[in-house]
Amino acid sequence: MALFDKFSKLAQERAALGQSGLNPFGTRIDEILSPTVGRIGDRQVILAGTNNYLGLTFDPGCIQAGQQALAQEGTGTTGSRMANGSYGSHIALEAELAEFMQRRSVIVYSTGYLANLGVIGTLAGPSDIVLLDADCHASIYDACRLGGAQVIRFRHNDAADLERRLLRLGERARECLIVVEGIYSMLGDRAPLREIAEVKRRLGGYLLVDEAHSVGVLGANGRGLAEELGVEADVDIVLGTFSKSLGAIGGFAASQHGDMELLRYASRPYIFTASPSPASIASVRAALRVMQARPELRQRLWANAQRLYQGLAGLGYRTGPEPSPVIAVLLGSAQEGMAFWQSLIDLGVYVNLVLPPATPGGQALVRCSVSAAHSGEQIDRIIQAFARLRDRLPPAAAVTDHRVHTGGLA
Amino acid sequence: MALFDKFSKLAQERAALGQSGLNPFGTRIDEILSPTVGRIGDRQVILAGTNNYLGLTFDPGCIQAGQQALAQEGTGTTGSRMANGSYGSHIALEAELAEFMQRRSVIVYSTGYLANLGVIGTLAGPSDIVLLDADCHASIYDACRLGGAQVIRFRHNDAADLERRLLRLGERARECLIVVEGIYSMLGDRAPLREIAEVKRRLGGYLLVDEAHSVGVLGANGRGLAEELGVEADVDIVLGTFSKSLGAIGGFAASQHGDMELLRYASRPYIFTASPSPASIASVRAALRVMQARPELRQRLWANAQRLYQGLAGLGYRTGPEPSPVIAVLLGSAQEGMAFWQSLIDLGVYVNLVLPPATPGGQALVRCSVSAAHSGEQIDRIIQAFARLRDRLPPAAAVTDHRVHTGGLA
Repeated sequence: MALFDKFSKLAQERAALGQSGLNPFGTRIDEILSPTVGRIGDRQVILAGTNNYLGLTFDPGCIQAGQQALAQEGTGTTGSRMANGSYGSHIALEAELAEFMQRRSVIVYSTGYLANLGVIGTLAGPSDIVLLDADCHASIYDACRLGGAQVIRFRHNDAADLERRLLRLGERARECLIVVEGIYSMLGDRAPLREIAEVKRRLGGYLLVDEAHSVGVLGANGRGLAEELGVEADVDIVLGTFSKSLGAIGGFAASQHGDMELLRYASRPYIFTASPSPASIASVRAALRVMQARPELRQRLWANAQRLYQGLAGLGYRTGPEPSPVIAVLLGSAQEGMAFWQSLIDLGVYVNLVLPPATPGGQALVRCSVSAAHSGEQIDRIIQAFARLRDRLPPAAAVTDHRVHTGGLA
Repeated sequence: MALFDKFSKLAQERAALGQSGLNPFGTRIDEILSPTVGRIGDRQVILAGTNNYLGLTFDPGCIQAGQQALAQEGTGTTGSRMANGSYGSHIALEAELAEFMQRRSVIVYSTGYLANLGVIGTLAGPSDIVLLDADCHASIYDACRLGGAQVIRFRHNDAADLERRLLRLGERARECLIVVEGIYSMLGDRAPLREIAEVKRRLGGYLLVDEAHSVGVLGANGRGLAEELGVEADVDIVLGTFSKSLGAIGGFAASQHGDMELLRYASRPYIFTASPSPASIASVRAALRVMQARPELRQRLWANAQRLYQGLAGLGYRTGPEPSPVIAVLLGSAQEGMAFWQSLIDLGVYVNLVLPPATPGGQALVRCSVSAAHSGEQIDRIIQAFARLRDRLPPAAAVTDHRVHTGGLA
């Protein structure tokens, strides 16, 4: 079979969805007017499908820090962290993150995907076992594939299922790696981290929590779900990203483990990737300061999240199981999802479309996300757009019980 | 075995090398003063171990473009190319690269490592065969691992060995993927691309050339080795990076293949990674214009490369097999390499240290690289530093025949 033939099914699927409207999987945002407003073609849209949780992409201090770094350190390092790409600023950011996260070691990677590959894919080799929540992000699955670890999935957010699987491993449970997320990116639900930490304490293993969507979002200081639930001591490694609440690009791993620093010498996605640009590093350092200095951003984010969640649930839409800055709305077939997404754009609202099989439950969904930078009026306009589309939906998509259980992925 | 125990050998090796001097595998460059000068601690050093081939990291137009993008588009996109991370500028860069590379499709990735993972790892799945030059970059090996392809290595730069291995595959040769590099990053030598293209024409397969170190460096227009040798029509996919001659961070794939665009919907490192920051995209667009408008940069780069290569070879050092912007100097044991690298820093010259087993031939080497931004006087100072160290070397490291053959890796 020719190398490209494997994509023919994909080509047919895409053709079947029609090419009449915009492409939801590569929407060109022609102009960015603010953290929450963009222009797509000739339509101005509210951006309700980003990960810009604190709205810091246009923070004047972050922009200025990036501009200064460009002038002082240039447009790029042209080298990996292991060669010539560790500037004073990269190392300062690691120290600042270590202090913020209250962990001894922090290693910065060039993207969040690479941080997952570089940490999980290096720690867990062919003789290791990784227990994954079934809804874990693609980067975590890819990390396991790269490292060659044996993967055991447990039912999404089901600590009892994790326990059963650990018990089956016997002594080997003590050395396995358990991976969960603070907030899951599709439905916006949180891991039952207290219960998972309790299982881990009893049966063993290392616990890694990907707090990509929860750093800056959860916890009294914004350190994520583990802080919120008071179980940070049970978490061996935290993964985080710069491309969500911190408004840039990059990722990091934070740990108390004494050997964590050795990862720098073994982690191929760290060794063989150019290091983050000075501008990204500088804007993240500034964003980290803003995140700590302005807890009201987190409060505003949650007020917006509650308002949108209640609004959509009140309209009868089937949403994710709990209020969150990520609010999924389940819609039915791929065609219905496509049409719905396009109609939202027509009504001036940009969200993310996700089609099966990537979705929990096998239905199309739109993923809304809110930002501290959304005004109440913008949130209301998003709800109004959904209200106008409410009557066009097939009956199955609008039900009174909006809670969705997604344990069926395992 | 505990998860971190696998690093204990690494820890011992590092301890054995001693911690007296600087750490060559994470050198902190405290200050960047220009594309070619930095400060490490209290020493000002000539940077001769970057990939800043055209010296564009401090190009005023590139810096200004990055600063403007920060102000207009913010510090980051906070989304992947497939979601909200395709701005007008990302798509404009793809069109400009397509025009420059004279290929129909260009896909931009967030780092060069990710471009290799995203293209090779997606095209070549478990039922595919990849024929790799044994000296290919780690990112290419990792891509094969991620995709699960069967890997067959052929002897470095040996088209006859490639041919033998293709012949053994029979009919399957027609569908395999052959991967080579324009300039190899360790020894700076080029692929015998005419011979390889000829074998590919006869026996089949797709030919992918990673021109990470050769775009902007080779070819009348800077399109790389395939342009230089007049075999672009035989190359199915070109991979390139933004973190070398283009002075930023990111990567791209360019192809004439009609189905190349489908990779956007199948390539997980594209779908699940935040897109490049607006500042990086803007500086790369500016750098691409400079690269085309100022061919004299390429001439200056090569004049510097010749000067340094002849200088080091003239001192009796064992260098790579041909003059190149990457000039390896083979040194002997790991301890000798460490001491040599440290002495060069003391003499005001920063280069990259590479230790076995990562090196061809199992010897420590220092990897020098030149930039169009180096002055002749800087090149001479680098040569003088090597001259001062010449007599301290063990006899094995200084020989009259400086040509090294590296075919033994396969």
